[in-house]
Amino acid sequence: MRFTSESRLDDGVLERDFTLGGIPGVLWTPGSASAPAPLILAGHPGGLDGMRPRLAGRARHSAEHGFASATIELPGSGDRPRRPAAEQARADLRRAIEAGEPVGEDIVDRLVLPLVDEAVPEWRAALDDLLALPEIGGPVGYSGGVISVGIRLAVVEPRISAAVLFAGSFVPRVMFEEARRVTIPLHVLLQWDDEWNDRQAALDLFDVFGSREKTLHANMGGHTGVPQHAGDAAARFFDRHLK
Amino acid sequence: MRFTSESRLDDGVLERDFTLGGIPGVLWTPGSASAPAPLILAGHPGGLDGMRPRLAGRARHSAEHGFASATIELPGSGDRPRRPAAEQARADLRRAIEAGEPVGEDIVDRLVLPLVDEAVPEWRAALDDLLALPEIGGPVGYSGGVISVGIRLAVVEPRISAAVLFAGSFVPRVMFEEARRVTIPLHVLLQWDDEWNDRQAALDLFDVFGSREKTLHANMGGHTGVPQHAGDAAARFFDRHLK
Repeated sequence: MRFTSESRLDDGVLERDFTLGGIPGVLWTPGSASAPAPLILAGHPGGLDGMRPRLAGRARHSAEHGFASATIELPGSGDRPRRPAAEQARADLRRAIEAGEPVGEDIVDRLVLPLVDEAVPEWRAALDDLLALPEIGGPVGYSGGVISVGIRLAVVEPRISAAVLFAGSFVPRVMFEEARRVTIPLHVLLQWDDEWNDRQAALDLFDVFGSREKTLHANMGGHTGVPQHAGDAAARFFDRHLK
Repeated sequence: MRFTSESRLDDGVLERDFTLGGIPGVLWTPGSASAPAPLILAGHPGGLDGMRPRLAGRARHSAEHGFASATIELPGSGDRPRRPAAEQARADLRRAIEAGEPVGEDIVDRLVLPLVDEAVPEWRAALDDLLALPEIGGPVGYSGGVISVGIRLAVVEPRISAAVLFAGSFVPRVMFEEARRVTIPLHVLLQWDDEWNDRQAALDLFDVFGSREKTLHANMGGHTGVPQHAGDAAARFFDRHLK
């Protein structure tokens, strides 16, 4: 992991861009940290440049609760090499949605499964390096989408102790079987009228998670309309489980 | 409204029993109130004596947030005169549940609709007297079940500004039409494995509420297993809407 730039935000949060094996990432650490901070891995749908304002907003909010946050670019997004099969699947998805047709399982599988297979080892490698920094302690949470990335990480990565999952993307049926094997505390955010999400599938997924402690918070509005109070509730979930 | 007893709880909350037209009730006010407190009407399934520990717990938690709480006995419960038709309906409901049969709509209608018709005017009369007390101000929230009582109150009682509804009882289909007319902010609690609740009906009901701001918080466990953090979240909902 090599830091490439840093800036101090007006609330004191230190924002540092880094690169790790050619993958760009960002680390935010609280300005007032006295001890090593617990870490939140901040998931997103890909495209760090476009997502940066929202990710920075989430990170600054988490920093108020004493958490560091880090994210990396997803395979095929931003400046990373294109993944033609994924781009075809994404085009097929858009076409189905715009035509008002049901989204075929094969499209979802082609879009999401290779992404999960490629992204999850990268997040785990990033976690290795992040936890080696003196200013980062544990425990570790995952927050955000792509929800299937969060599911896989929750299953395979024992250093992740709790997760806030955004039910805002299509989930391959095969991921439902992985979801049964998730046992860490979960806090699932669902935008009730999310145009990029199948509400019933999100409820079915919530039902199958194996976690003894799981909470679903559903709010009104579309994909980007998560209300402020929902962010507050997610931060309090991490307060309970990462401190 | 006539107070019949009072006691000071160890956290300073003043607990006063009252009677109003022969209906017993309880009022809890914060120990440290300097200004008239906003009021939460604390709904319950009937049977104040048995419910008192849980209601007092909710009231003490609300008092930490500066709220007064009040409740009254439901028609046919506690020491109030029996309602034979309702008791027959309740027996039919238990029989259906214990036999693993679907609960007929006629049973739910017979159980709930007369209760709503009788209880809501009583809650409104209690509200008249409660708001006349110098230590009670506004605004007013409703919290709890019977959810159909909360729906009706939200529709007909303009002094109620926000409601936390417990999806823990059967809801007559006709109440879904009333639910469409609810416009106040809502916070709906759903116990995912509630043995006294039809989960899909609860989700359908959440969907039809007309409120622009509505949030569903679903947690694991049965009817009485609402976790502490869910109570905290409900209190913060009232913080946002009653202050």
